[in-house]
Amino acid sequence: MALRAAGRQSLVDTVVGELRAQLTAGEWAVGERIPTEHALAEQLQVGRNTVREAVRVLVHSGMLRSRQGEGTFVVATADPGEIVRGVQRADVRDVLELRIALEAEGARLAALRHQPSDLERMRASLAAQAAFRDSRGQPADGQYELYAEHDIEFHVAVVDAAHNAALSATYAWFSSSVRDALVASLHDRHMPRIHETDHHDLVDAIATGDPEVAERAARELLAKPKQAVDTLLGAE
Amino acid sequence: MALRAAGRQSLVDTVVGELRAQLTAGEWAVGERIPTEHALAEQLQVGRNTVREAVRVLVHSGMLRSRQGEGTFVVATADPGEIVRGVQRADVRDVLELRIALEAEGARLAALRHQPSDLERMRASLAAQAAFRDSRGQPADGQYELYAEHDIEFHVAVVDAAHNAALSATYAWFSSSVRDALVASLHDRHMPRIHETDHHDLVDAIATGDPEVAERAARELLAKPKQAVDTLLGAE
Repeated sequence: MALRAAGRQSLVDTVVGELRAQLTAGEWAVGERIPTEHALAEQLQVGRNTVREAVRVLVHSGMLRSRQGEGTFVVATADPGEIVRGVQRADVRDVLELRIALEAEGARLAALRHQPSDLERMRASLAAQAAFRDSRGQPADGQYELYAEHDIEFHVAVVDAAHNAALSATYAWFSSSVRDALVASLHDRHMPRIHETDHHDLVDAIATGDPEVAERAARELLAKPKQAVDTLLGAE
Repeated sequence: MALRAAGRQSLVDTVVGELRAQLTAGEWAVGERIPTEHALAEQLQVGRNTVREAVRVLVHSGMLRSRQGEGTFVVATADPGEIVRGVQRADVRDVLELRIALEAEGARLAALRHQPSDLERMRASLAAQAAFRDSRGQPADGQYELYAEHDIEFHVAVVDAAHNAALSATYAWFSSSVRDALVASLHDRHMPRIHETDHHDLVDAIATGDPEVAERAARELLAKPKQAVDTLLGAE
C-alpha cells in the first residue's frame, strides 16, 4: 500500500503553501523573526499543531531557522525546493547549460587554487572509469551506471578543486540530480561518443594554472554533448 | 513567545534525518518507490503519523514526490536545503564567485537568445534604479534597500534573457538569498564605488549578439567587487 500521505493535499500542506507565499512576497525579511505559533494559528484559523508542522517543513526546506527560546527566523525568501522543481521542468539543453556554467567557473578557479591532491583525485576517477570501457574506449554494455558514477566523480573533483564551498554545494546537489539524465544519454545513440582524451586534457589544463586555458578545456569537454542537444532540438 | 517547535529536536526531525541519510547514501535510486509508511514505521520503530510527517517534510524539500494511490518516489538523492546551508556557510568570496558563474553564462546565452523585450526590461531596471542615486551617482543614503532591489532586478533580467529555465530557477533562488549581502556591501566603505556605465555596457554587449563580448562585459561588471573581496581576504 502507498503512503497514506501520498497525494493528499492536507491542511498542513495548505498552511505550508500560505506561509511560503507570505515569505516569497517579502512579508518578512531575511533575518527577521516570524510571528509566534499562537499568532500564526489565529491568523490562519488553524490549530497550533498544524502551524508547528508547517513551520517544521519550512525549516527543513531551508526557508526558516528555529533558535531555541528565541523564535523562528527567516533564512531565505525563495524556496530551495523550487530550484529542484525548476530544474526538473527544464529540458535537457537547459540543464546542460547550467552544468557548463558551474564547470567552466569551477575549472577557472581550480586552475588558480588546486592542490596536488586535487589532480590526483581527478586522475584516480578517470583510472577507475577505464575499467568500465569496452575495446573501442566506449562505456561497456551493462556498465553504464558504474561508468556514469565515475564520470560524475571526475566532474565533482574538478569543481571541488576550486575550493569554493558555495560552488561545491550547488554542484553536488546538481550532479546527484543529473545522474539519471547522464545514464539515459549513454543509451542514446544520438549523443556523441565519449573521448577520454578530452577528460585528461582538462586535468592538464587545470595543472597549467591558467584560468583561461582551464575554462576553455572545460567548455571543450561539454561542447560535443551541447552541440548534439542543440542539433536534436533544432536550436540556434 | 517563540514557536514551541523552535530548537526542539523532535522525533519527526530524527526520522527526517534518518530518511535523508538513507536517501543520500543511495538506499533508493532516483525514480524508485520508497517503502510504505507501514514498513518504514516498523523499520524505524516509530508511529505511522511520525513517518507521515517526516515524508511530508522531504516532499516539500524536493527529495521525494507523492503520487496519489501509487506511493512516494525519490526525486533527488541530495537535499536542496543543503545548498542553502552550504551557501550560508560559504564566505562572501565564494558566493560572489558562484554569482559570477551564473551571470557569465547567463550573459553568453542572453547574447544568443534575447528578445527586444529582454533589453527593455534591463534598461527599465536601470532607469528605476537611477531614482535612488545621489548627485555623485552613488546609492543615496537611506535608499540602499530600494537601490539593491533594482540592482537585483537588473541582474535577474540579464539571466532571464538566456531563456533557460534551469539557470533562471537557480539564479532566482540565489539572488533572493544574496539581497542582504548586497545591502551590507553598499554600507561597506571597503567595497568599490558603483559605476552605472558598466551596467549599460553589459546591456549593449548582450545586444551585439556575441556571446564572448557579453561574457566579458558580465565578468567586467563583477570584477571590481571580486577584486575588493580578494584584497580584503588577502586571497590569491
